[in-house]
Amino acid sequence: MEDLSFWIGIIATIAFAVTGVLAISDRGVDLFGVLVLGLITAIGGGTLRDLILEVPVFWASMPIYVWVALVASVIAFYLESFFTQPQIYRSMLYLDGFGAALFGIQGADKAWGMDFGIPIAPVILGVITAIGGGLIRDMIAGRRNLLMSHELYAIPVSLGCMLYVFILEFAPRFAAEGSIACMLLIVGFRAAAIYWNLRVPSMFITKKR
Amino acid sequence: MEDLSFWIGIIATIAFAVTGVLAISDRGVDLFGVLVLGLITAIGGGTLRDLILEVPVFWASMPIYVWVALVASVIAFYLESFFTQPQIYRSMLYLDGFGAALFGIQGADKAWGMDFGIPIAPVILGVITAIGGGLIRDMIAGRRNLLMSHELYAIPVSLGCMLYVFILEFAPRFAAEGSIACMLLIVGFRAAAIYWNLRVPSMFITKKR
Amino acid sequence: MEDLSFWIGIIATIAFAVTGVLAISDRGVDLFGVLVLGLITAIGGGTLRDLILEVPVFWASMPIYVWVALVASVIAFYLESFFTQPQIYRSMLYLDGFGAALFGIQGADKAWGMDFGIPIAPVILGVITAIGGGLIRDMIAGRRNLLMSHELYAIPVSLGCMLYVFILEFAPRFAAEGSIACMLLIVGFRAAAIYWNLRVPSMFITKKR
Repeated sequence: MEDLSFWIGIIATIAFAVTGVLAISDRGVDLFGVLVLGLITAIGGGTLRDLILEVPVFWASMPIYVWVALVASVIAFYLESFFTQPQIYRSMLYLDGFGAALFGIQGADKAWGMDFGIPIAPVILGVITAIGGGLIRDMIAGRRNLLMSHELYAIPVSLGCMLYVFILEFAPRFAAEGSIACMLLIVGFRAAAIYWNLRVPSMFITKKR
Repeated sequence: MEDLSFWIGIIATIAFAVTGVLAISDRGVDLFGVLVLGLITAIGGGTLRDLILEVPVFWASMPIYVWVALVASVIAFYLESFFTQPQIYRSMLYLDGFGAALFGIQGADKAWGMDFGIPIAPVILGVITAIGGGLIRDMIAGRRNLLMSHELYAIPVSLGCMLYVFILEFAPRFAAEGSIACMLLIVGFRAAAIYWNLRVPSMFITKKR
Repeated sequence: MEDLSFWIGIIATIAFAVTGVLAISDRGVDLFGVLVLGLITAIGGGTLRDLILEVPVFWASMPIYVWVALVASVIAFYLESFFTQPQIYRSMLYLDGFGAALFGIQGADKAWGMDFGIPIAPVILGVITAIGGGLIRDMIAGRRNLLMSHELYAIPVSLGCMLYVFILEFAPRFAAEGSIACMLLIVGFRAAAIYWNLRVPSMFITKKR
């Protein structure tokens, strides 16, 4: 089980690094910038979470995540024209949604396990784990981020983390099954958003002035 | 006294969340973005302060601040047209100045109490507590922040925190009265800036090129 | 030796604060903004490093660095027309490269000494120490940062830190000589980039679309 979770983490890290690089590759970034921004996308959210939880950042004891993110970023740089083919890019988006689901539930779980600001803080830390890296990347790259572009990305993660916290509180016996169910919920919601190009309905958006 | 300080903190949190949401509502933000950015405005500065002080973030033991900020953000979203009426908006600005005064002095006090980098660091941490959340919000929202727009906001907070540190050093017996006096100084200075629309004089501004 | 390293740190801090202020002075910043942004440029990278390493931020026990950065920022504000003379500005750039070399190697050394995520994390923390402050400054000032502008700045720092980590691993007896050699490598590479106006070759840059 531990082993499975490790490999899922590796896959999620790769997906985050690759989509992170593709998100900013149209801005004329050099290879070094690609390495930094791919790395930040992949490990930035978990780093923020660990700083707030006051625990050692996860990549201090598991530097393999750093290596994987760096290698994936280099590959994304050199195979950019491959990855930006519409169908391949779409697959990467689904994989990225899977990564967000994993990182979100993992983050909420870590905070819950530390009894940290229950019940609201684990939800917040799950969301930070899933979207924090992308936000920092977009701030550095001067790019409009997902919070400002009405994407259905953080919302599925939040709902999944809320449901997971609910399960941990009221049905802790089903924590393991619950974590998988909540991940599937996030993946499904996110996949639907990608497939049908769903966005936040305009009634939930303030008017631009 | 503890009780009073708690309630003042709640009011300041509400003011920060509401003005935080109003500051970015003209950019077309969805309800989820509003929740995140209102929350960051309200608790971001204190979170930065606690990270630098290496103490648990305040909302881990007092999640009520998170709830209050979230509820205030939702209300600001739905009652935006109410809050943006000139007179109501002005009242919110005064309330926000009051919040900045409280957060600033609280932040300086917390750092001083931990004997942290005295005498300069408490001033810096007071300023971070008061303006950090707004800065992060503006970076995420891609908005010109108060440091770049010559507002008299961080300057009153800095002066108040400096005076407070001065009192703690040279007249520690008057710490309690001093904290209130310094808050009033900040509120008064900030209120004057809002009322007369004062800004940093141009002799203290570098030339745009 | 300790003493020498202290004074070198002070010189690097001054160089970072001054170049930090000059980098944003063309945007119409007021004196307070200059103080904040000069300070962030000078101590921001080391602060990020210490937060990630979970050690007290260096300026809590050595507030002298804060004072030096603040004074240097004020001087840069008032003597801006002096510092922006082409020849003086150029000297400041060389001094800034020297600062980056020092901060980079110091950061890598601190992480290595804590046995933190060896061997990759010390390199990352060296780079963060050297460029973190400038990145935060540019995000706050809404300015294109060095990661997005193909400057040869972070790359020399990374190479120097990598070599230093290599020496610490395989020739620890030469750690002291190695640290100086790696700093000289960074300074030399950076100086060459300034002198010949070298940038990242376009074959390592993604196409703008």
